[in-house]
Amino acid sequence: MGNTFGQLFRVTTFGESHGGGIGVVIDGCPPKIDISDADIQYALDRRRPGQSEITTQRKEEDRCEILSGIFEGKTLGTPISILVRNRDARAEDYVDVAKQFRPSHADFTYEAKYGVRDWRGGGRASARETIGRVAAGTIARKVLRAFYPKIDIVAYVIQIHEIVGKIDKSKVKTKDVDANIVRCPDAAAAKKMISLIEKVRAEGDSLGGVIECVVRNAPTGLGEPVFDKLEADLAKARLSLPATKGFEIGSGFPSTRMRGSEHNDPFEMRSGKIRTSTNYSGGVQGGISNGEDIYFRVAFKPTATIAREQQTVTASHEQTMLTARGRHDPCVLPRAVPIVEAMTALVLCDHALCQRALSWSKE
Amino acid sequence: MGNTFGQLFRVTTFGESHGGGIGVVIDGCPPKIDISDADIQYALDRRRPGQSEITTQRKEEDRCEILSGIFEGKTLGTPISILVRNRDARAEDYVDVAKQFRPSHADFTYEAKYGVRDWRGGGRASARETIGRVAAGTIARKVLRAFYPKIDIVAYVIQIHEIVGKIDKSKVKTKDVDANIVRCPDAAAAKKMISLIEKVRAEGDSLGGVIECVVRNAPTGLGEPVFDKLEADLAKARLSLPATKGFEIGSGFPSTRMRGSEHNDPFEMRSGKIRTSTNYSGGVQGGISNGEDIYFRVAFKPTATIAREQQTVTASHEQTMLTARGRHDPCVLPRAVPIVEAMTALVLCDHALCQRALSWSKE
Amino acid sequence: MGNTFGQLFRVTTFGESHGGGIGVVIDGCPPKIDISDADIQYALDRRRPGQSEITTQRKEEDRCEILSGIFEGKTLGTPISILVRNRDARAEDYVDVAKQFRPSHADFTYEAKYGVRDWRGGGRASARETIGRVAAGTIARKVLRAFYPKIDIVAYVIQIHEIVGKIDKSKVKTKDVDANIVRCPDAAAAKKMISLIEKVRAEGDSLGGVIECVVRNAPTGLGEPVFDKLEADLAKARLSLPATKGFEIGSGFPSTRMRGSEHNDPFEMRSGKIRTSTNYSGGVQGGISNGEDIYFRVAFKPTATIAREQQTVTASHEQTMLTARGRHDPCVLPRAVPIVEAMTALVLCDHALCQRALSWSKE
Amino acid sequence: MGNTFGQLFRVTTFGESHGGGIGVVIDGCPPKIDISDADIQYALDRRRPGQSEITTQRKEEDRCEILSGIFEGKTLGTPISILVRNRDARAEDYVDVAKQFRPSHADFTYEAKYGVRDWRGGGRASARETIGRVAAGTIARKVLRAFYPKIDIVAYVIQIHEIVGKIDKSKVKTKDVDANIVRCPDAAAAKKMISLIEKVRAEGDSLGGVIECVVRNAPTGLGEPVFDKLEADLAKARLSLPATKGFEIGSGFPSTRMRGSEHNDPFEMRSGKIRTSTNYSGGVQGGISNGEDIYFRVAFKPTATIAREQQTVTASHEQTMLTARGRHDPCVLPRAVPIVEAMTALVLCDHALCQRALSWSKE
Repeated sequence: MGNTFGQLFRVTTFGESHGGGIGVVIDGCPPKIDISDADIQYALDRRRPGQSEITTQRKEEDRCEILSGIFEGKTLGTPISILVRNRDARAEDYVDVAKQFRPSHADFTYEAKYGVRDWRGGGRASARETIGRVAAGTIARKVLRAFYPKIDIVAYVIQIHEIVGKIDKSKVKTKDVDANIVRCPDAAAAKKMISLIEKVRAEGDSLGGVIECVVRNAPTGLGEPVFDKLEADLAKARLSLPATKGFEIGSGFPSTRMRGSEHNDPFEMRSGKIRTSTNYSGGVQGGISNGEDIYFRVAFKPTATIAREQQTVTASHEQTMLTARGRHDPCVLPRAVPIVEAMTALVLCDHALCQRALSWSKE
Repeated sequence: MGNTFGQLFRVTTFGESHGGGIGVVIDGCPPKIDISDADIQYALDRRRPGQSEITTQRKEEDRCEILSGIFEGKTLGTPISILVRNRDARAEDYVDVAKQFRPSHADFTYEAKYGVRDWRGGGRASARETIGRVAAGTIARKVLRAFYPKIDIVAYVIQIHEIVGKIDKSKVKTKDVDANIVRCPDAAAAKKMISLIEKVRAEGDSLGGVIECVVRNAPTGLGEPVFDKLEADLAKARLSLPATKGFEIGSGFPSTRMRGSEHNDPFEMRSGKIRTSTNYSGGVQGGISNGEDIYFRVAFKPTATIAREQQTVTASHEQTMLTARGRHDPCVLPRAVPIVEAMTALVLCDHALCQRALSWSKE
Repeated sequence: MGNTFGQLFRVTTFGESHGGGIGVVIDGCPPKIDISDADIQYALDRRRPGQSEITTQRKEEDRCEILSGIFEGKTLGTPISILVRNRDARAEDYVDVAKQFRPSHADFTYEAKYGVRDWRGGGRASARETIGRVAAGTIARKVLRAFYPKIDIVAYVIQIHEIVGKIDKSKVKTKDVDANIVRCPDAAAAKKMISLIEKVRAEGDSLGGVIECVVRNAPTGLGEPVFDKLEADLAKARLSLPATKGFEIGSGFPSTRMRGSEHNDPFEMRSGKIRTSTNYSGGVQGGISNGEDIYFRVAFKPTATIAREQQTVTASHEQTMLTARGRHDPCVLPRAVPIVEAMTALVLCDHALCQRALSWSKE
Repeated sequence: MGNTFGQLFRVTTFGESHGGGIGVVIDGCPPKIDISDADIQYALDRRRPGQSEITTQRKEEDRCEILSGIFEGKTLGTPISILVRNRDARAEDYVDVAKQFRPSHADFTYEAKYGVRDWRGGGRASARETIGRVAAGTIARKVLRAFYPKIDIVAYVIQIHEIVGKIDKSKVKTKDVDANIVRCPDAAAAKKMISLIEKVRAEGDSLGGVIECVVRNAPTGLGEPVFDKLEADLAKARLSLPATKGFEIGSGFPSTRMRGSEHNDPFEMRSGKIRTSTNYSGGVQGGISNGEDIYFRVAFKPTATIAREQQTVTASHEQTMLTARGRHDPCVLPRAVPIVEAMTALVLCDHALCQRALSWSKE
């Protein structure tokens, strides 16, 4: 269980890192949406390994094949399934892992839960699983655009270790994000981040950081109180990603040091619309979008795989020392940017369909 | 939609602040669990208004009535429904709200989404809704105890505005938490917090803060990768509560400033069991509990209702000034402590039932 | 589990026959639908016991109370909860049942499944549970009418034992159905049915029969292939009712004795619309409504409760003889008519909301 | 939507008849169950086209590939995905269908619902979709056997047109069923059925019939009242299959002509167990299995595809005559036998997992 996301726009991912392939089935996509292989491949390319010198050197083209649900370039309303074969699968790198538990990885907990595991490259716990999410997110974004032509979802790296970028979330564009390999649209900060990642990688160590995401021109009315509040589903989507340790929306944790009189967002009329003067709420009030920019941040811990000797135990309960092998990212954030965008699109698309089903307007 | 939580232990809440009552239906509770009215009433009393001088003065006894699902003191395996009538409902306090949108409340978004709203006391968006969660959480805790007799869930206030308590999460007990009215088990910090809340209330303003929650003696194996990771469901549960702006588990946002070599939790053998030497992971790895303490923090913004004049607009799009009336909490955190515990119990109980269904052991 | 019906229009019922009350929570009802207590009471009155000399003499007014979700006569989009208290609860009639298993009742299977049961009047297995379905069905019908003003759902008794009525399903109206106490709109057959029921009741025995239901002016496009085909959900809804043994749609079991050349429904143009000349399909093709009348039949077995001595065993495994006490219906069909209509409305309303969410048209 | 079946053992099928392939993802399969390609291939071979002279001559090997979820011959607890490529796809046979609606097929309703359709071979509405069900059913059966080693599921053809077989459901075995190409274990009746099918095929026509299915040695306690009663889910599973028009369990429609005193199943002690003397209930009482044989029948209409000229209309609303092309089965029942078994296994496995999650026993 646990491999499906969404109530109406339902995404089910499958696949292990070194098995037959990684894929996704999307059930609940409206018909007649234009989708091409190229749309999906573009998104997968932003996520794939080996795209720059600061990411893992595993060589995967991550070529997608659409197996069903799309005919003559349009969605059919039937399940869309997309498959990406695993190619550069060097299982032999992981023979040690079969018997030892890598610290802060999922080896031990999978063994404890299932009594069996595919130890090759992390198996199901590998970040390769997110390929399915990115493919589905691309379709979700297309659906959202069909309903709200001006909606815009942009994620970017805002912090690596102690280096924090300055980014104007009301204006930042994808081309600014992709202007450098660390995907931080503050060029000066990006330069420092890249140097730091290279230095830390040389030391066999790893780094964490923060990704921020903004949704502009979202409609009012998305979110299903009380349990499926928009921020609740955004939080779940984020914490379901590997290596995440925190989520905050709008004013986030710093809001805890403000007073109500500072933090409340006054309403005002602007261009004939009800708007707020400030946006500490982060575009969501009472669990429902209010038409302002939706923005939030996600904390990623430093990558668990490091090229240093570490203390651990074996499956047969003996203490041992482990040296990581296999290829890995010294910092997952640059490649996580498209994943964060994809999860955002999935949440919004699902809520958009819910709102369509239940809205009071009869048209 | 959105009023049900859980896959197997399914909790559906209903009710508006000033309607006929607030309640909950729990479907998926195993049979033969001992439950009494007193168990539920004890939990509701920790949440009810008017319990101390720093909470709202609305007078509600919040008496629960069990309508179904329990017979001769035991659960039947059929749906358990619990009803709490609304008593001290002064709708006249809210006549202004019918026409104006209170800043940072849900008035505007409910109107935008539904085209209609029950404006009395926030209607469905009122924190009174959490009565159902607390009642259900009590039953969830009983179920958890039936499976894991030593499991312990304790939440407490760790921060109010800039005052931060020092609390040993491996030892803190509910009686320490309830030793003072702000529910911070650091007595010195608690005293300062209470003074500050009183001062700010006198100024017609409000405060936010952080609640921490720890689960001790949780079993390994809870959590359903990939989307229903334990931390993902804990995050969703938290962000589904009114006034929350952030969630972090284990090392949380500060982990972003650590290196992998510092942050990884080495495995070791301890008392014949596989344990970790440190616990930056917060008791969850790869979305599955690893047997260590599960701990996390939730950020609450300052209460939106303040006794000061604020700028807003009316439903007919006119700019106006609003003075809050009605009774409210200058700081929601003390009363939110049992709610955070309840949501934790709901998440763990649901995952415990999933694990029971799908575990490999044949007994 | 198992107490919720529907994907979007989600109905959860609760309550035991002799507990605090019977009720329902409806989540996923669109806002701004007009509903009054009287609407619901009218439907409950068609279902309630004691309404005629051929139904059980249990005296229940079945007065409904709307607890939430409706404000100033309109749905709010929040969960609607409705409660009916149990009044004429003579638990003492059932003391024997606590220790013995009534043949063809749920006493034994509830004990086997749950290890505990509320033996008073069948507990959760009592047909009183259907009160919640009837209340919810009334609201579903209102929602359907808001979308499709001409839609019409009519159920009626078509067969009691070997007496079969002749009814024109394209024209039959509710007032014809309610014209007699057996709810068979063929007056001559109805007379015979009533005599037979009275005779069999006097003999301490019981009867079964068939209810037919027709939906006229349903839209095309309802039904979600492949698993949630319209007929699949109609079948499930029917077989979830107490005492049902079979379901058939359109040509049903007799279709098995036809050839394809006889059975296929040719398409033709009629009044500018694509229609079928015959309607063996029963208004559904490939799991999706085609705009023709949807019609189906449900088989009800003879009531299990009879006033005769029967062989059975006790909970402590001793063979014994049981004489039924308590009040009961010699034939459940007349009272089942509004229940069949309610379940039909629930299925159609849920599918209408799904279709609204996923339809290709952008308005 | 509508492409997922089951609450815990969740089966999602995908694929169109002439697209990239047909497949299934199974989420919620317990780990450590032995599964081989050969297990699945055996079941697919019983379903595949071209297996005898009375089935369609489409040449499909239906070779399955397991893409994920199984490692070293055992399930991992992660999603199992299985893909079957489409090979003998002669889309040109269906060019007419692109513009005309075949009577009693899903062409018109898919067009009405989705505004677009894959017209090649019925697209998603093709019975090829059931490949995924059969593959998943094989795994479900393995899981059931792991829990209840003696459980047995056998389906067979009991009626073709007016020829009815005599079969002892307490003893019939799969090898008896597969002893002839029509899959009717009454050899004399089978011979007549085969002759009739051959005759009718020669006439360009088609036939319907009835499949019966029996489950022996099922445990007590499966089924989730009130909506997810075992018979309700069995009914839904059946009516979700192409070409089905009816379902009856136990005494079925004939029960409507019996009296309660005849129909009730008396309890008795047998070999130390509580059993019923008769089994009109069909092994289910109050929606829960009672340990007796579960048996039910499914009505299949005559195949809609016939080799005769038929009246229909075009997509542009013109009346026309259509002659079927493409390959097809004159009678679907022989190939539907493994599909009925598969759906039965899916329902039982899902309910077995539910019962495991919620049972009162603490082990």
